[in-house]
Amino acid sequence: MTRYRLVLAYDGTAYAGWQIQPGQTTVQQVMQDAIRRLASEKVIAHGSGRTDQGVHARKQYVHIEFERDDDLVPMLSKGLNAILPAGIRVSLVSRAAPDFDARRSAVRKEYRYFIWNGAVLPPFLRLYRTQIKDTLDAAAMAKAAQYLVGRHDFAAFTANPNRVVESTVRTLSRLDVRRKGKEIVIIAASEGFLYKMVRSLAGFLIRVGEGAVKPETAKEILDSRVRTARVPTAPPQGLFLWEVWY
Amino acid sequence: MTRYRLVLAYDGTAYAGWQIQPGQTTVQQVMQDAIRRLASEKVIAHGSGRTDQGVHARKQYVHIEFERDDDLVPMLSKGLNAILPAGIRVSLVSRAAPDFDARRSAVRKEYRYFIWNGAVLPPFLRLYRTQIKDTLDAAAMAKAAQYLVGRHDFAAFTANPNRVVESTVRTLSRLDVRRKGKEIVIIAASEGFLYKMVRSLAGFLIRVGEGAVKPETAKEILDSRVRTARVPTAPPQGLFLWEVWY
Repeated sequence: MTRYRLVLAYDGTAYAGWQIQPGQTTVQQVMQDAIRRLASEKVIAHGSGRTDQGVHARKQYVHIEFERDDDLVPMLSKGLNAILPAGIRVSLVSRAAPDFDARRSAVRKEYRYFIWNGAVLPPFLRLYRTQIKDTLDAAAMAKAAQYLVGRHDFAAFTANPNRVVESTVRTLSRLDVRRKGKEIVIIAASEGFLYKMVRSLAGFLIRVGEGAVKPETAKEILDSRVRTARVPTAPPQGLFLWEVWY
Repeated sequence: MTRYRLVLAYDGTAYAGWQIQPGQTTVQQVMQDAIRRLASEKVIAHGSGRTDQGVHARKQYVHIEFERDDDLVPMLSKGLNAILPAGIRVSLVSRAAPDFDARRSAVRKEYRYFIWNGAVLPPFLRLYRTQIKDTLDAAAMAKAAQYLVGRHDFAAFTANPNRVVESTVRTLSRLDVRRKGKEIVIIAASEGFLYKMVRSLAGFLIRVGEGAVKPETAKEILDSRVRTARVPTAPPQGLFLWEVWY
């Protein structure tokens, strides 16, 4: 048995997210098919976490395990990109320790949410930015973000209440809002995120930036622990899984 | 009669170039259809020049003329982007002098050709870069480019010999090759370019970068005035019409 670690980048536009779903084209499915075709062995591609439909990954970490013991690094690094569609790229393949687990071994993840804050979205960015035409108050967004950093119960900032989770308490180690010209980037880092948490944080921050709610509302919403219309889910195309630390 | 100047950006991936062709989807056709739908008047969208299938435009300048005299700037600037596909954006609309001609009034045009010089092309750039996996010698490319700058007969650097042109002499005011990490950009400026001239220059420079031909060959090829296999046409997706000066 030999375990490998892969680093992938993918354009989520054409995929129903990372995770395998019957009747859908997902990144995990395409990866597994490519690996099987190349290495003639059926493996499971375990990702650091799922990404939703339309969400991109600059760096998604994956582990796979083969029955055979011969070194597959050369074959995987060269062969996979020759088989995979150009929207999915393997940027690194290495041997991994037998206990390396792309999801469980992760100590910190970073997502970045990109907003094009202007009247005209450049066509070359149309798949990678969420456009907000009216000028957002990035300073107000940054202020609201500071109420959300730290250890909190983020029940009000997750979707799908049917999902069974042990706890909705998470530690948000970073939530920055930066403007550079017409681009606003929200940088969120945590040891773990809840389902649709980053898009919920982004949706709320956009509303703050629009002046619809005050920055201080963040505290109140956290305390309520209830997801309401005050926290919309921002569209997927602005979101990138940016980095994972092990 | 009122004349307007429009500045467009477009992703050329889905289009059979700028110019109208029967049975093809072209940017000019899509523009004219959108203007007609919005302003209920059939106009011709005159571009600064044609771009080939798959070639992008960061700034394409266009003039259109309406029979009516009322100010259409507000309607055109707001309405066109609401009708047009996201791959074509109008970034500026203004009234133009009656003698402004997007093609004939242009005094200088700049194209940029983008090469991703690395083993793994980031998926988000796959439609906007030409990938060359082996490391190119950018210094050799820059040296070759210097032989091409200036006033020359560029017959050896144009495609389609059936095309009737008065002269194949052009003044290349700039031909720079710059490397920034894995990206190499070729910047070409001239008062006018021949058909497929920039892609021919890029194709030749890539061969120089690969070490297949020496930089000095540029002089010899210019002097020959004959297009041969020594000058391949580089793929369209790396090319952007970057700026036009009036």
